[in-house]
Amino acid sequence: MSKACKSCSSANASGGCSSGHDPKTCGTKPEDEKIASTLKRIKHKIVVLSGKGGVGKSTVATNIAMGLAMAGKKVGLLDVDIHGPSIPRLLSLGDAKPHIEPDHMEPVPYNSNLFVMSLGFLIPDKETAVIWRGPMKLGLIKQFVRDVSWGDLDYLVTDCPPGTGDEPLAVLQTFGPEAQAVIVTTPQGVAVDDVRRSVTFCNQLENPVLGIVENMSGFVCPNCKTTHDIFNSGGGEALAREMNVPFLGRVPMDPEVVRSGDEGYPFLKVQGDTPTGQALAKILGPILALDA
Amino acid sequence: MSKACKSCSSANASGGCSSGHDPKTCGTKPEDEKIASTLKRIKHKIVVLSGKGGVGKSTVATNIAMGLAMAGKKVGLLDVDIHGPSIPRLLSLGDAKPHIEPDHMEPVPYNSNLFVMSLGFLIPDKETAVIWRGPMKLGLIKQFVRDVSWGDLDYLVTDCPPGTGDEPLAVLQTFGPEAQAVIVTTPQGVAVDDVRRSVTFCNQLENPVLGIVENMSGFVCPNCKTTHDIFNSGGGEALAREMNVPFLGRVPMDPEVVRSGDEGYPFLKVQGDTPTGQALAKILGPILALDA
Repeated sequence: MSKACKSCSSANASGGCSSGHDPKTCGTKPEDEKIASTLKRIKHKIVVLSGKGGVGKSTVATNIAMGLAMAGKKVGLLDVDIHGPSIPRLLSLGDAKPHIEPDHMEPVPYNSNLFVMSLGFLIPDKETAVIWRGPMKLGLIKQFVRDVSWGDLDYLVTDCPPGTGDEPLAVLQTFGPEAQAVIVTTPQGVAVDDVRRSVTFCNQLENPVLGIVENMSGFVCPNCKTTHDIFNSGGGEALAREMNVPFLGRVPMDPEVVRSGDEGYPFLKVQGDTPTGQALAKILGPILALDA
Repeated sequence: MSKACKSCSSANASGGCSSGHDPKTCGTKPEDEKIASTLKRIKHKIVVLSGKGGVGKSTVATNIAMGLAMAGKKVGLLDVDIHGPSIPRLLSLGDAKPHIEPDHMEPVPYNSNLFVMSLGFLIPDKETAVIWRGPMKLGLIKQFVRDVSWGDLDYLVTDCPPGTGDEPLAVLQTFGPEAQAVIVTTPQGVAVDDVRRSVTFCNQLENPVLGIVENMSGFVCPNCKTTHDIFNSGGGEALAREMNVPFLGRVPMDPEVVRSGDEGYPFLKVQGDTPTGQALAKILGPILALDA
């Protein structure tokens, strides 16, 4: 009997299921079936996670999505960072509004390969503090998968809120064990402490970890070219070794990354030939290989 | 009729309260009375907030608490960052365990003036991912105020998790409108967007904002001494002006802050004479003035 059948009202004591349901969807509600049919059309689900905020998760997620789209893939970028939805700004889509129909929403097209959905599109103004309680958040996250017309995608890249709480749990539970995690950290010990818990979190939920990205790893002085490890160095790589997950690479600090984010043009698109751009491109390798 | 009386079962239609309760505690449960009696012994409640993670909130909270203790005040430092409790590491208290009695917990003494409580003290190991749901978090936060024997304090400095969700809401609701917020941001636009919502959040809850701290504001190359605005510059100060709240000051980036945090000695104690130490000390001025 499939896992789903166990919770179905037609399941019987001997372990059989008398309903004649498809075992894959047996025991699920209509809304779960809608989610399942949406997910079936998305080949690879990439979830960008971090135990700690402010490590550059949204920047990494945006640049992964952009890089995949530049490689000719059909890509969705889903921003479920409810308290700080920054993807619209990072892509100069701050004033965009998704087209909303009674039973579905259209994601906002960035170009012919990249489609975006974010709570940022739905908040009335930039000052509003969204005081969501847990259950509302879960509902919203499910809705973003269920009611958005993603269509056929090679990749859906999801930018999670930081931590190991309600929201990343809802994301991984909605996507199921197929979703693969990219975990972002900065090198300092205080960040690595939090991010270690993200790896355990994925293990507990049985979601594979594609690897760890060490962001803000060293700063090269633009004037004298010396390197300074402002947030220390090597913490992400050491954590990958310790937790036995792949290390995807180090991304050096670059004021241009911050500027490009604030001004809303994706760094990888315009600065791909810098050391930081090349580091971001290298991270794409194992993700592109999933669809080779 | 006091606000509390409105929800009391003894309140009558004409607006009076027939119970003879103290209007200040009328309508409250015994556990709320315990919280009220704890809070009565704490002169100033400082809550350190940010709409965005990774902006240095815990570092600012720790150094404010340390600075107040160094000025001779009795200080409690409460870490309610449930997913990433970093205060124990920042103070080299990683192996400390609070003394627990059936009806209360003793905070961990850092020295004779500074007492600390953090979820980090109660998590079994450094790998455990704490998958708390909303209501559990609220219970834990109330418990940290209700059941910790803080005693008589001049200040209780509380380090909140990022965002404007369940946890900061629970903290401000538990402390009430007396609690004053210190809001931390980094200068870049993407952070300021999130932090603007923190100011609105405090306004909605009618908690006064003591001011905004602009952290990671410029990096001075230790080699050639040129200044680089890695995360841009001035965003926190501009936000303070826009939202009509005080600006407490800019704290420059300094790799020593990261190192001192990872190694667990409070920066302000050992590096107080550096530009970053002086900037942190300046922020203390208006907070110390509350108890003058």
